[in-house]
Amino acid sequence: MEKALEFYKKQRRKILMFKYLDFVVSWDMETDAAENSIMADSEQVAVMSEMSYQLVTDPDFEQAVAVLYSNRDRLDSVMRHEIEVTYKNISDTKKIPQDEYTAYSELTSKAYPVYVKAKTENNFELFRPYLEKIVDFCRKQTKWLATDDLQGYDVLLDMYEPHYNQAKYDKFFDALRTRLVPFVKQATAKPYVAPKWAVQPFEEDKQKEFCEYLRDVMCFDKSRGIMKLSEHPFTSGFGTDDVRITNHYYANKFDSSVFSAIHETGHALYEQQCDKALNGTLSYGGASLGLHESQSRFYENVIGRSRAFWTVHYPKLQQTFARQLKGVSLDEFLKHINNVQRSFVRTEADELTYPLHVMLRYEIEKKVISGELEVKDLPKYWNEKFTEYFGITPKSDTEGVLQDVHWAYGNFGYFPTYALGSAIASQLYHYMSKDFNVEQSLQSGTTAQVNEWLKEHVHKYGSSKYPDEILRLATGEDFNPDYYIDYLIDKYSK
Amino acid sequence: MEKALEFYKKQRRKILMFKYLDFVVSWDMETDAAENSIMADSEQVAVMSEMSYQLVTDPDFEQAVAVLYSNRDRLDSVMRHEIEVTYKNISDTKKIPQDEYTAYSELTSKAYPVYVKAKTENNFELFRPYLEKIVDFCRKQTKWLATDDLQGYDVLLDMYEPHYNQAKYDKFFDALRTRLVPFVKQATAKPYVAPKWAVQPFEEDKQKEFCEYLRDVMCFDKSRGIMKLSEHPFTSGFGTDDVRITNHYYANKFDSSVFSAIHETGHALYEQQCDKALNGTLSYGGASLGLHESQSRFYENVIGRSRAFWTVHYPKLQQTFARQLKGVSLDEFLKHINNVQRSFVRTEADELTYPLHVMLRYEIEKKVISGELEVKDLPKYWNEKFTEYFGITPKSDTEGVLQDVHWAYGNFGYFPTYALGSAIASQLYHYMSKDFNVEQSLQSGTTAQVNEWLKEHVHKYGSSKYPDEILRLATGEDFNPDYYIDYLIDKYSK
Repeated sequence: MEKALEFYKKQRRKILMFKYLDFVVSWDMETDAAENSIMADSEQVAVMSEMSYQLVTDPDFEQAVAVLYSNRDRLDSVMRHEIEVTYKNISDTKKIPQDEYTAYSELTSKAYPVYVKAKTENNFELFRPYLEKIVDFCRKQTKWLATDDLQGYDVLLDMYEPHYNQAKYDKFFDALRTRLVPFVKQATAKPYVAPKWAVQPFEEDKQKEFCEYLRDVMCFDKSRGIMKLSEHPFTSGFGTDDVRITNHYYANKFDSSVFSAIHETGHALYEQQCDKALNGTLSYGGASLGLHESQSRFYENVIGRSRAFWTVHYPKLQQTFARQLKGVSLDEFLKHINNVQRSFVRTEADELTYPLHVMLRYEIEKKVISGELEVKDLPKYWNEKFTEYFGITPKSDTEGVLQDVHWAYGNFGYFPTYALGSAIASQLYHYMSKDFNVEQSLQSGTTAQVNEWLKEHVHKYGSSKYPDEILRLATGEDFNPDYYIDYLIDKYSK
Repeated sequence: MEKALEFYKKQRRKILMFKYLDFVVSWDMETDAAENSIMADSEQVAVMSEMSYQLVTDPDFEQAVAVLYSNRDRLDSVMRHEIEVTYKNISDTKKIPQDEYTAYSELTSKAYPVYVKAKTENNFELFRPYLEKIVDFCRKQTKWLATDDLQGYDVLLDMYEPHYNQAKYDKFFDALRTRLVPFVKQATAKPYVAPKWAVQPFEEDKQKEFCEYLRDVMCFDKSRGIMKLSEHPFTSGFGTDDVRITNHYYANKFDSSVFSAIHETGHALYEQQCDKALNGTLSYGGASLGLHESQSRFYENVIGRSRAFWTVHYPKLQQTFARQLKGVSLDEFLKHINNVQRSFVRTEADELTYPLHVMLRYEIEKKVISGELEVKDLPKYWNEKFTEYFGITPKSDTEGVLQDVHWAYGNFGYFPTYALGSAIASQLYHYMSKDFNVEQSLQSGTTAQVNEWLKEHVHKYGSSKYPDEILRLATGEDFNPDYYIDYLIDKYSK
């Protein structure tokens, strides 16, 4: 076992190095590499993937992990969790026939440009044959990876959010369907029209300046990561000491960059506040997609759209955009940043309607994976269900079933984590509020006390535990969607 | 041999991948990574170096290279050259005792911060013990790597510029000493005072805009590489399709960014104009430091400081800086960008005095490596020689013997390539001018014809030949310093 541990750690150093390189190369491609450079460099990225794959599938490594797994009771809790996860990953990988996997990788890389074309040209039929093959693979995947505890769609859900299955999600989305759908219909009956001051040009350099101010308000340690420009905002990094975000500035939509900055800094704080001792292990960074999203949504919505937050920071925004915000009261500003409206596109949806978009995808994925719904029937089914939930009908597949890229990558089971994140944020908020007055703490001018609570109850664990375990430690109960629905109905009734 | 070639190519793919990764990681660290992230990520860089070193020193690889080397007459010319160079690198590496090499790597990594402190505090004694050990290693290195053709300082010179030895450099620097030193003393007798218009603030964003214009003038393909901000300008890339430069903008020194842009784009064109067929081999990119510097200096000085160039582009500069350049004539502008003066620091020297700075270092390195001069006597010797050549005496070691970092890295033999570059640029200019009227070609508004000539005579070869061979192919003769000295005396006599 000593020898296995030594070999494991030696190999882990290299695996970590490739994770770091993968981060730097992706960062570079998203932000600096020129269009034709990206194409030329793809050969190097392919070699990198091959070498990195060889490390993880190295029989000696597999052997070492197997030895450690058999002796996992003798490992400390962090290492035990890491070995359990690694052991599962290796055995899952082995369950997928090599030739099927290779064919599938080729399929998804070919599917992506076709998807883009299909979306641009509003032509679902173009994408259909690819999606059918992808769905076929995903259905087979649920069989290959099935265990006593996991079958069908649960297999896929567990890949993106460990220990979250249909039983849990059904409870969540059933509650949404019953309580939120009627409420939303009522709340969005009257279309929202943005006031004139909100759609005039806001200088992009000043937007950036204000977003840098927000990073300070959120106590992000800038000596460990920059904010940069990219097409779509994202967070990326390696360990606690290199965590970066990007942003995008639209002259006529100043609130887009402001809330992206808060959202991404939320993700970044999670990474930056992990226990430093996890650096150098595979347990650094966030525990899951859903838990990660809960942090970004917590800062963006619970904190960032609150009166308490803007009471302190609106004067600074008003000072930055003196011309545009002259005479715009705090009330008017708050009303605008919390507006709700019916819309077709998930990524542009507001806080209240957002989870319904995700619910729709969940229901559809469930039926597709079980075989109840076929790919050819997707556009029709999408539009029917959309109309049922939102009271409006997409005028094209582009703003309907084709709007999101995830299925082109084969990411069935991913979507639910988006809504889960918001719901977990509310559950955390409920318990945080028992420990201290969140709104009052913001009067200090920073989110320091919020950060400290989240660090202590969520961030510090990194990915050294499963997300459901962390939630139980933080709140003393399992995932409970009621806090979220209560929060939304309470907030948007006012 | 077939098997050896196959293995060689397989291993080369990985070696190339690490070269690409090294480029991206360095680029990231120089431009995006935050201060504390760089420290944290250094562990990953160390693992990367280890893995990359293992590839090159892999006994199977060594064996494959040896087989190919024995059969090199059966290889095509590009592969033959690559194998010759690789074979030499491997055998040179093996000649250095492993323990000495490890100790030396540690020494230089410790020496760097001490050097920085010594320079900041003007305290040579602090750095002295480190430099003594570095010199000791370099002297031993000349013994370990000695061959029938290469002994002493020649061993080190050849590492930075293959086939250039003391016999060649002596001829070069003797000519400089005899012809240029007296000329420079005369030309710089009267101190230069910059006119008021040149030292007022020039907006940094407009400087950048003009530098982007210059990249277009030089026909750099921007779809294959960006220009970005960094502390010191540099060029970096991988293959022909990812070539990037950086720049730095000083409000009160607008000409700094302008000439850096031209200089770095010169380097970048060399990389971008290599034969695309060399991508995927180890023969991509420039052939040597000196030849690379000849390209950047060619564009910066021969083209970029010429009347012909600015006759076309000064109106654009004047338009960009309408306020600052109002009423400044082309003559006044040309006078300013071609001013000459005595100065202490190499990196700030003008075109005329620059090579004398390099000459001084060459003479000193020669004596240090031969053992004629000891480290403890360096500051005194430096100041005496500097006074002899420039007629002024450094007031501190900071602006004297401590000004450059190279020796802290153990880079003895590197400096001469800087002056060689300028001299080769003049030799190329001489022969280019026989083929077409360079000045007249610039009237087209771009450097297209110049680029084409350099591509055909220099760039296309990449590093598939030795630099002296390329120079002979381009000009029909060996390196000849007379063109350079004639050019300088002719230009600065006017």
